[in-house]
Amino acid sequence: MKFDKDGNVTTFEKKKMELYHELSLQARDLRFQHLTSITARNNNIIIRMEALKAVVTPNSLLVLDFRGLGLERWLVMELAPQLNGDHGALATHSLPFEFRALEAILQHRVNTLQARLNEVHPVILDILESLVDPKLLSADRSKLHILLQNSKNLSELETDIKVFKDSLLKILDEEEMIEELCVTKWTDPRVFEESSLGIDHAEEMELLLENYFMQAEELGNTTRELKGLIDDSESVIFINLDSHRNVMMRLNLQLTMGTFSLSLFGLMGVAFGMNLESTFEEDPKVFWLVTGFMFLGSGLIWRRLLSFLGRHLEPTVPPQIPTVWKRNQVNSKGGEVKSGLRG
Amino acid sequence: MKFDKDGNVTTFEKKKMELYHELSLQARDLRFQHLTSITARNNNIIIRMEALKAVVTPNSLLVLDFRGLGLERWLVMELAPQLNGDHGALATHSLPFEFRALEAILQHRVNTLQARLNEVHPVILDILESLVDPKLLSADRSKLHILLQNSKNLSELETDIKVFKDSLLKILDEEEMIEELCVTKWTDPRVFEESSLGIDHAEEMELLLENYFMQAEELGNTTRELKGLIDDSESVIFINLDSHRNVMMRLNLQLTMGTFSLSLFGLMGVAFGMNLESTFEEDPKVFWLVTGFMFLGSGLIWRRLLSFLGRHLEPTVPPQIPTVWKRNQVNSKGGEVKSGLRG
Amino acid sequence: MKFDKDGNVTTFEKKKMELYHELSLQARDLRFQHLTSITARNNNIIIRMEALKAVVTPNSLLVLDFRGLGLERWLVMELAPQLNGDHGALATHSLPFEFRALEAILQHRVNTLQARLNEVHPVILDILESLVDPKLLSADRSKLHILLQNSKNLSELETDIKVFKDSLLKILDEEEMIEELCVTKWTDPRVFEESSLGIDHAEEMELLLENYFMQAEELGNTTRELKGLIDDSESVIFINLDSHRNVMMRLNLQLTMGTFSLSLFGLMGVAFGMNLESTFEEDPKVFWLVTGFMFLGSGLIWRRLLSFLGRHLEPTVPPQIPTVWKRNQVNSKGGEVKSGLRG
Amino acid sequence: MKFDKDGNVTTFEKKKMELYHELSLQARDLRFQHLTSITARNNNIIIRMEALKAVVTPNSLLVLDFRGLGLERWLVMELAPQLNGDHGALATHSLPFEFRALEAILQHRVNTLQARLNEVHPVILDILESLVDPKLLSADRSKLHILLQNSKNLSELETDIKVFKDSLLKILDEEEMIEELCVTKWTDPRVFEESSLGIDHAEEMELLLENYFMQAEELGNTTRELKGLIDDSESVIFINLDSHRNVMMRLNLQLTMGTFSLSLFGLMGVAFGMNLESTFEEDPKVFWLVTGFMFLGSGLIWRRLLSFLGRHLEPTVPPQIPTVWKRNQVNSKGGEVKSGLRG
Amino acid sequence: MKFDKDGNVTTFEKKKMELYHELSLQARDLRFQHLTSITARNNNIIIRMEALKAVVTPNSLLVLDFRGLGLERWLVMELAPQLNGDHGALATHSLPFEFRALEAILQHRVNTLQARLNEVHPVILDILESLVDPKLLSADRSKLHILLQNSKNLSELETDIKVFKDSLLKILDEEEMIEELCVTKWTDPRVFEESSLGIDHAEEMELLLENYFMQAEELGNTTRELKGLIDDSESVIFINLDSHRNVMMRLNLQLTMGTFSLSLFGLMGVAFGMNLESTFEEDPKVFWLVTGFMFLGSGLIWRRLLSFLGRHLEPTVPPQIPTVWKRNQVNSKGGEVKSGLRG
Repeated sequence: MKFDKDGNVTTFEKKKMELYHELSLQARDLRFQHLTSITARNNNIIIRMEALKAVVTPNSLLVLDFRGLGLERWLVMELAPQLNGDHGALATHSLPFEFRALEAILQHRVNTLQARLNEVHPVILDILESLVDPKLLSADRSKLHILLQNSKNLSELETDIKVFKDSLLKILDEEEMIEELCVTKWTDPRVFEESSLGIDHAEEMELLLENYFMQAEELGNTTRELKGLIDDSESVIFINLDSHRNVMMRLNLQLTMGTFSLSLFGLMGVAFGMNLESTFEEDPKVFWLVTGFMFLGSGLIWRRLLSFLGRHLEPTVPPQIPTVWKRNQVNSKGGEVKSGLRG
Repeated sequence: MKFDKDGNVTTFEKKKMELYHELSLQARDLRFQHLTSITARNNNIIIRMEALKAVVTPNSLLVLDFRGLGLERWLVMELAPQLNGDHGALATHSLPFEFRALEAILQHRVNTLQARLNEVHPVILDILESLVDPKLLSADRSKLHILLQNSKNLSELETDIKVFKDSLLKILDEEEMIEELCVTKWTDPRVFEESSLGIDHAEEMELLLENYFMQAEELGNTTRELKGLIDDSESVIFINLDSHRNVMMRLNLQLTMGTFSLSLFGLMGVAFGMNLESTFEEDPKVFWLVTGFMFLGSGLIWRRLLSFLGRHLEPTVPPQIPTVWKRNQVNSKGGEVKSGLRG
Repeated sequence: MKFDKDGNVTTFEKKKMELYHELSLQARDLRFQHLTSITARNNNIIIRMEALKAVVTPNSLLVLDFRGLGLERWLVMELAPQLNGDHGALATHSLPFEFRALEAILQHRVNTLQARLNEVHPVILDILESLVDPKLLSADRSKLHILLQNSKNLSELETDIKVFKDSLLKILDEEEMIEELCVTKWTDPRVFEESSLGIDHAEEMELLLENYFMQAEELGNTTRELKGLIDDSESVIFINLDSHRNVMMRLNLQLTMGTFSLSLFGLMGVAFGMNLESTFEEDPKVFWLVTGFMFLGSGLIWRRLLSFLGRHLEPTVPPQIPTVWKRNQVNSKGGEVKSGLRG
Repeated sequence: MKFDKDGNVTTFEKKKMELYHELSLQARDLRFQHLTSITARNNNIIIRMEALKAVVTPNSLLVLDFRGLGLERWLVMELAPQLNGDHGALATHSLPFEFRALEAILQHRVNTLQARLNEVHPVILDILESLVDPKLLSADRSKLHILLQNSKNLSELETDIKVFKDSLLKILDEEEMIEELCVTKWTDPRVFEESSLGIDHAEEMELLLENYFMQAEELGNTTRELKGLIDDSESVIFINLDSHRNVMMRLNLQLTMGTFSLSLFGLMGVAFGMNLESTFEEDPKVFWLVTGFMFLGSGLIWRRLLSFLGRHLEPTVPPQIPTVWKRNQVNSKGGEVKSGLRG
Repeated sequence: MKFDKDGNVTTFEKKKMELYHELSLQARDLRFQHLTSITARNNNIIIRMEALKAVVTPNSLLVLDFRGLGLERWLVMELAPQLNGDHGALATHSLPFEFRALEAILQHRVNTLQARLNEVHPVILDILESLVDPKLLSADRSKLHILLQNSKNLSELETDIKVFKDSLLKILDEEEMIEELCVTKWTDPRVFEESSLGIDHAEEMELLLENYFMQAEELGNTTRELKGLIDDSESVIFINLDSHRNVMMRLNLQLTMGTFSLSLFGLMGVAFGMNLESTFEEDPKVFWLVTGFMFLGSGLIWRRLLSFLGRHLEPTVPPQIPTVWKRNQVNSKGGEVKSGLRG
C-alpha cells in the first residue's frame, strides 16, 4: 500500500515493519499523531498534512495510505512531473531531491487551503452583499443559515492555517531543525558538493519554508479581513433592521394618534346615537354642526398630536456640538491628517 | 494510604514523615499547592493534575490520596498494564520507567480533558442548531439556560487546557528542567547506558512533552472554534429575532392602517346614526350611497397608506453602489481571489 | 511612627532622616512611587503592596505608616507569629529571616486579593443567576446597577492582580534581581553557610516567588472566567428579552388582526345603524342574516389573517440544511470528536 | 528662537545651521520626524514629546520652537527651578545635569497625560452614571454625544500613552542606549567620577526611565479600566432600555386585549343598534340582559386573555436547573471560592 | 521594458534571461512571490511593494514592469530628482546610492498608504458624524452602505500596513540582513571608505528602516483609533435608535390607553344606541348624564392608567446607590484621580 517515486512512479505494498527497517525508523516515528507536522528523523523527513502522509528520503518520496482520499489524481498528474523537475513552475529543480519533494507537498497544502478559502470567500461576500441591502425589511433567514455555516468553515480554515503556520514557524525558529531537513547534505556529500555551487543548503531550505510561511500568512490575513467584514456587516444589518423598525413605529404611532382622535370624537357621535332624548333631535342644523365638529375636531387633535410627536423627537443638543467635534479633532491630530470635514 | 507500582501493584499506608524521609524530599515539596504542576526534586518527579497527585521515582510510581476520586478504576485497570509495558499503545516501553509513568499520567490528563470536551461539544452543537433554526419566532429559553451552563463549562475547560499547556511549556522552555526530568540518567547510569543505544534521553523527553503539548493545543483550538461558533450563532439568533419582529411589525402596521381607514369612514356612519335630523332620512338611495362610500373610501385610503408604506421602506441608494463594491474588491485583492459577485 | 520586629514586636517613632541613615538608604528609595513594587537596595528589600509599606533588613522587618489602614489586627495577630516561625503554615521557617518576611507579606497580599475576589464572586453569580432566569419579562434594573458596580470592582481587581503578577514576573525574569533579594547571603555569610545545607538560596527564592506568581495567575484565571460569564449572560439576557418581546408582539399582532376583523364587519352594523332608509327595515330575517354575517365574517377573516401570519413566519429553508451542517462537521473534525448530532 | 538653560535662563535666536554646528549634529538629527522620540547623538539627547522639542547637552537644555504652544508658563515657572536643583520634588539633584533635564521633561510629559486623563475621567464617570440610571426610559441623546467625544479623546490618549511607553521600552530593552543617554559619563569624566560616589550612572538612568514607564503603565491601566466600564455600561443601558420596552409592551398588549374584548362585544351592541327588526325591541329586560352580557363578556374574555398571556410568558424550565448550576460550580471550583449561592 | 537610473534616466527593454545574467541573479530571485518584500541577493536589493517591482544595484535602480500601473508620473517627476540628490527633502544625499534608492521607494510606499488613509479617514468621520446625529430617528441606510465599504477599505489598509511593518521588522530583527542591505560596503570599498567619514553604514540603514517603521506604526495607530471610533459610534447609534423607540413606544402606549378608555365608555353609548327598550328613553336628563359619564369616565380612567404607567416605569432602587458608587471609586483609586462626581 505504498507508492514510490524517484524518476518514475512505482506502486507497491509493504508491511509496516519492513518499512521501518528499510528506513531505519522506529514505529513511533510513523504514528502521525498530529494533523500537521514536519519532522526529520535519521535523514528522512516525515510529513503529515491532514490526509497526506509522506516520508521523504534522500532519493525517493514515499506517500503512505494514499487510497480513498481523493489524492490519486494529484499524485499521478502533478506530483510526478514536479519531482522530475520537468515542471517549470518549481524553483528548486537545480537543488537536491528533498527540496523538490518538500516544495511539492507544501505547495499542495497551500493550494488546498487556498482552494478552501476560494470556495468560502465569494459565497460569504455574496450573502453579505444581499444581507446588507438596505432595501430589505428583514434578513433572509435561509441566507443567515448559509452564512453561519460558511463562517463556521472559515473558522476551521483559520485554525488550519494557524496550525500550518505554527508548524513551519517551529522549524524556522530553530536553526538546527532546518539543517536536519537538508538530508542530502548528510547522506550524500558528493551530491551535496556537486549541487551546491556556492549555495548554502540550509539557507535555501529556510527561504523555501519562509516562502510558504508567508503564503500562509497572506491566506490568514484574507481570512481575518473576511471575519472583520462579517462582523461589520452584522452591525450594519442590525442598524438597518432597527432603522426600519423605528420608521415603521413612527408610522404606527401616527396612525394610532389618528385612531385615537377618531375614537374621541366618534364618542360624541355615539352619544348622540343613543336612544335618549337630547332635545336637539328636531333641529337639522345641529346634525351638520355636530358632524362637522366631529371630523374637524378629529383632524385638529390629530394634527396637534403629530406636531407634538415631531417636537418630542427633536434633539435637545445645542447646535455648537458638531463644531466641538471638528475643532477637537483638528487639535489632537495636528496637521497630519487633513480631514475635510464639511460639518 | 499510598499505592506503589513497579511491576506489580501494592497498596499500603504510610505516614507523611516516613515518606519524606524515604524519598529524601522536604515537606514543602509534597504540598501540591497548584492544581497542575510538574516538578523534579532530588531525582523524583512530583506531579499534580487536579485530583491526581503522584511521585515518580526512578523505579516506582507513588499515587497519593487516590481514594474517593473516581480514579480507582483507571488506576487498577489501565495504569498497571501501561507501566508494565504490556500495553501496545505506549511508544516508550523501550525507555526507562519514568518515561512510561509520565506518559501514562499525561495521557490520562489529556484523555480527561478530551472527555470533558466530548461531553460539552455535541450538546452545544445540538442547542445551537435548534436555536438558529429560522422557523422559530422566539428562542427557547430553557435551551438558552442549558447553553449558558455549557458555555460556562467550556470556559472552565479552556482555562484548564491553558493551565496544562502553560505548565508543559514552562518545562519545554528550559533545557535543564527537561534534563532533570530524566531521573534514570542521574540515578542509574548503568541502566541509562544500557537503554540508551544511541538515544538521547533529554531529546526523547522533549518529544514526549511536545507531543502532549500539541494534543492540548488541538483541544484548545477546538474549544476556541466552539466559542467562536457560539458567538456567531448568537448574532444569527439576534438577526433572526429582529427580522421576525420587523415582519410582524409591518403586518401590524398594515392592519393598523386598515383599522384607521375603517375608523375614519365608520365615523361617517356614526354621524348618520345620530338621532339628529339630516334631511336625508327618507331617501333610500342615500343609504346605499353612504354605505358604499364608507366601504370604498376605507379600502382606497388603506391602499393609499399601504403604497405609502411601501415607498417609505424603499432604499434611497443609487443603483451603482453594488458595482462600486465589486470594482473596489477586484482592485484591492488583484487576481488572487476570483470573487464571483453577480451583483 | 515605625514598628520593628525581630522576635518580639517593638513600636517606635523615628524621623525619616534617621531611618535613611540607619538603613544606609537614600531618600528616593523610600518614596514608594508605585502602588506595587519589590526592590532590593543595599541589602534591604523595599516592598510596597498598596497600603502596606515595608522594609526587610537581614534581621528585622520595618512596617512604615501602618496606622489607620486597618492593618493593625493583621500585624499584631498574624504577622508576628509567622515571622517567629511558630506558625506551621509557612514552609520557610528553616530559611533566613528575609524569606519568612517576604513570604508573610506576599501571602498577605494574595489573601487580600483572594478576599476581594471572594466578595465579588458570589454576588455576581447570584445576580447573573437571577437575571438569566427565563421567567423574567424584564431585567430587574436595580440588580443591573449592582452588577455594574461589581463588574467595575472586578475590573479593578483584575488590574491589581495583573500589576502584582507583573512585578513578580519582572523579578523572576532577571536572575540577578533574585540574587539581590537573598540579603542574608550577602550580609551574614556565617548564617548563610549554616542555614544552607545543600540549599541554594537563589533557587529557593525563585520557588517562593514563582509560587505566589502562580497563585496570582489562578486568581487571574478565575477573574477572566467570571468576566466571560458576565458577557455570556448578557447575551442570554438579550436573547431572553428579545424572545419575550417577539412572543408578545405575535400576540399583539393576532389581537390587532381580531380588532381589524371586528372593525371591518362592525362597519356593516354601523351602516345599518344609520338613520337612512335601506328598505330592509321591516324584514326580521335580515337582522339575523346581517348579524350572523358580521360575526361569522369577522371570525373567518381573522382566521384567514392568522393562517397568513403563520405562513409568513415559516422558514423558507429547504430541509436538507441540517444535514449539510452535520456532514460538514463530520468531515472536518474527522473521528476526533464524536458529535452526537441527532439531526 | 531658542532658549538656553544652565543655572539661569537665556533666550536667544539662532539659525538652524549654527545650531547644528555648535552641537556637532547633522540636519537630519533635528528633524523630529516622530511625535515621541528620545535619541542620543554625539553626547546630546534629542527629545520630542508632541509639541515639546528639546536638546539636552551635558550642561544645558535647549528648548526649540517653544512659542505659541502654551508651554511658556511651564518653562519659566517650573522648569528653571527644577533644573537648578532647588525644587525638592526631584530625586536626581545629586546627579549630573542630563538626569535633571530628562526627569523634568519626562515628568512634564507624564503630567500632561495625567492631566488629560483627569479631564476626561470624571466627565465619563458622570455621564455613565446618569446614563445607567434605571429611572430613565430613554437615553439622553446629547449626553451620548458628549460620551462619544470623550471616548474618542480617551482612545487618542490611550494611543499617546502607548507610544510614550513604547519609546521608553525601546530604550530600556537595549543596554547600550541607556549607556549613551548618560552623556556626562562620556564628556566630562571628572564630573562623572566626582558625582558617582558608588553610583552606577547607567543603572540610575534605567531606574529613572523605569519609573516613568511604570507611571505611564498605571495611566494605561486606568484608561483600559475606563474603556471597560464604558463597554459594561453600554450593555447595562441596552438591557435597561430593552427591559423598559418589554414592560411597556406587556402593558400595551394587555390594553390591546381589553380593546379587542370591548370591540368583540361592542359588535353585539352595534348589531342591535341596526335599524333592522330583531323582534326583541319591545322587551325591556332584553336591554339589560344584552348590556350586561356585553360588559360582563368583555370583562371575562379580557381576563381570559390576560391569564393566557401570563401562562404564555411563564418558563418552561424544570425547577432543578438552578441546582445543576450550583452543583456544577461547586465541583469545578473545589473549595477555593465559597460561593454563597442561595439557589 | 526596463528603466534605468543613475543620474539620468534611460528606458530600455531586455529579456529576462539577460537581466538575470547581468545582475548574476537566479530566475527565482526575481519572481516576486509576495506582495511586499525586501531582500538582498548578491549585492542587489530586490524590492516589491504591491505594484512596484525594483532592483537596487550599487549604482543603479531598475524598475521592472512599470507600465500601466499609474506609476509613470511618480517615476519621472519625483523619483529621478530624489535619486540625483537634488531634492532637499531626503536626508541621505551624502550617503551611497542604495540609501537614496531605498529611501525613495519606502517613502513612496508610506506616501501611498498615507494617501489611502487620507482618502478613507474624512469620509468615515463625515458619515459617523451624520449617523450619530441625535436628531435622526432612523439611520440613513445609504450612508451605512458607504460606511461599510469604507470600513472594508480600512481593514484592507490595516492589513497592508501590518504587512509593510512586518517586512521591515523582519529586517530590523536580524543584524546581518541590515548589513547585507548596505551593498556599497561590499562592492565598492573605496566609495565606502570615502563616504563613511565616521558613519557606520549598517547603523544608518537601521535608522532609515526604523524611521519608516515608525511612520507605518503611526499610520497603524490612526487606523486602529478609527476602527475604535466606528465601534463606539455604532453603540451610540444603537442606543439612539433604542431611545427613540422607547419614547415612541411610551407615546403609543399612552394613546392605546386613551383608545381603551374611549372604547370602554363608548360601549355604554353603544348599549344605549341599541334598538332595545331601556325605559330611560323619555328622560332628557339621562342623555346628559350618560354622555357626561362617558366622557368624564374615559378621561378619569385614562388619567388613572397614565399615572399607573408613570409608577410602573419608576425605579425600585434605593437612593443611596449613587453614593455607593462614588465612595467605592474614591476608595479604590485613592487620591490619584480627583473625580468630580457631583453625585
